[in-house]
Amino acid sequence: MKLGHVGEPGAESPVAFVGPDTVVDLSAVTSSVDGRFLASGGLVRAAEAIGHLEPEPLGGRRIGAPIARPHQILCIGLNYSDHAAETGQEVPAEPIVFTKAPNTLIGPDDAVRIPRGGTKTDWEVELGIVIGRRTSYLGSPEEAADAIAGFCVVNDVSERAFQLERGGQWSKGKSAETFNPVGPWLVTPDEIPDVRCLGMWLEVNGVRRQSGSTSKMIFDPYVIVHYLSQFFVLEPGDLINTGTPPGVGMGLRPPVFLRAGDVMELGIQGLGSQRQTVVGPRA
Amino acid sequence: MKLGHVGEPGAESPVAFVGPDTVVDLSAVTSSVDGRFLASGGLVRAAEAIGHLEPEPLGGRRIGAPIARPHQILCIGLNYSDHAAETGQEVPAEPIVFTKAPNTLIGPDDAVRIPRGGTKTDWEVELGIVIGRRTSYLGSPEEAADAIAGFCVVNDVSERAFQLERGGQWSKGKSAETFNPVGPWLVTPDEIPDVRCLGMWLEVNGVRRQSGSTSKMIFDPYVIVHYLSQFFVLEPGDLINTGTPPGVGMGLRPPVFLRAGDVMELGIQGLGSQRQTVVGPRA
Repeated sequence: MKLGHVGEPGAESPVAFVGPDTVVDLSAVTSSVDGRFLASGGLVRAAEAIGHLEPEPLGGRRIGAPIARPHQILCIGLNYSDHAAETGQEVPAEPIVFTKAPNTLIGPDDAVRIPRGGTKTDWEVELGIVIGRRTSYLGSPEEAADAIAGFCVVNDVSERAFQLERGGQWSKGKSAETFNPVGPWLVTPDEIPDVRCLGMWLEVNGVRRQSGSTSKMIFDPYVIVHYLSQFFVLEPGDLINTGTPPGVGMGLRPPVFLRAGDVMELGIQGLGSQRQTVVGPRA
Repeated sequence: MKLGHVGEPGAESPVAFVGPDTVVDLSAVTSSVDGRFLASGGLVRAAEAIGHLEPEPLGGRRIGAPIARPHQILCIGLNYSDHAAETGQEVPAEPIVFTKAPNTLIGPDDAVRIPRGGTKTDWEVELGIVIGRRTSYLGSPEEAADAIAGFCVVNDVSERAFQLERGGQWSKGKSAETFNPVGPWLVTPDEIPDVRCLGMWLEVNGVRRQSGSTSKMIFDPYVIVHYLSQFFVLEPGDLINTGTPPGVGMGLRPPVFLRAGDVMELGIQGLGSQRQTVVGPRA
């Protein structure tokens, strides 16, 4: 099942994506794909309802983020062995965890805005994990599967100058408005043969910058959820960005960063693709 | 005006604290002291309503956190010149920003739970700032006053082993359940002669551990809100923990950390006091 939202910001409807350019409106099942929906058996209710509802064309409607604004966005840093090598940093002994402000969440094709004073705005294609129930102190990575509602594509946009040159804690460079495009879909685990082996890619202005596979993750999604549950109480609807493969702008020689007018396109095998135009700072 | 909540978790009512052990029920004005209330002129409506409502005894009712769960909890590290000296660290050139999970929020007298595996759980009395409206790119610290709904006492509880010995990013050691007692009150700025000169204190088992004054802040509340607004979009109801004065457990020689059964008492001049019993990890 592929769930999400369509419509303008502030007036989005929940839908299931059931075919190319075809959706089923789930407004009769829930007002939103949010934590309450996920924690109350919403995925089962949606699956039952889809067969009885009339498919309709997506048409030109905007696709929103596939989940409502989460309680928290947790992120794993340096989680690909080839990306760690690229940045000249050691493979971490345990997951590096930082956060993004929840209000960075936007749709997969919405514009990404360079923050005022930003000079090193960068891209990061990532696998996103969406939590399905309140989760604390999991006993093992194997138990994590039951806590996961699904997976999605994320662009973990970063302003490197703010992240790395302004005091050491990373959230400051990860939380500008529009910095977390998500979607197009929340894909339930039954649709994914092996989340630990998905190809992923990102292009800027048609130039391939990132090519990778979740098989290169140092800590896989189940290890990550088990690990995070020892430090945080995960809430239904929470989003976890699991780290990026090689090819980010700051890793290029010379570095390349985003400018107004640039176009980012990115995707993950089976999870869909995104396309964002970069716009300049607010006047 | 002193606002907050009374009642058991999940069944709290909004109130104004109008005298010793006396409250006015504000349920007719709002269901909660949350971002929507603050952003929609709720403080004005509450002030108008108080005179027409019947005071009632607080009695033995629990006091909850004075604000609803915020969209984000932002924290400033090493913000007191005397605390920076105590920890042997340099005074930061600009604010160090980290985050706590929003679901760490608890009432001022609720139990604080040591996390599983925690060995260095520590205290931090702090001035909390509550944001009153959506705020981005403030032009100056002077403009910050209009963005602030009020102030409160916070205990920024920390697990130092998780914060400092597990990968470098601090949120991991700041986000365990119960790690952010707030209250008893949200105090509006008109009740505070100068928020930049308030005495603050914390005792553990009756032993004075922290004594300080907001006058020792490196970055004052208005500078902090202006600064944060350059990196984050602040939402109404967001909470900012502004850093702690000297006397945290890890700064003592030898260090002293919290154990089950310990009692923390803390307060800030004009903003009330808290009392938490420490309990052991979840079985």
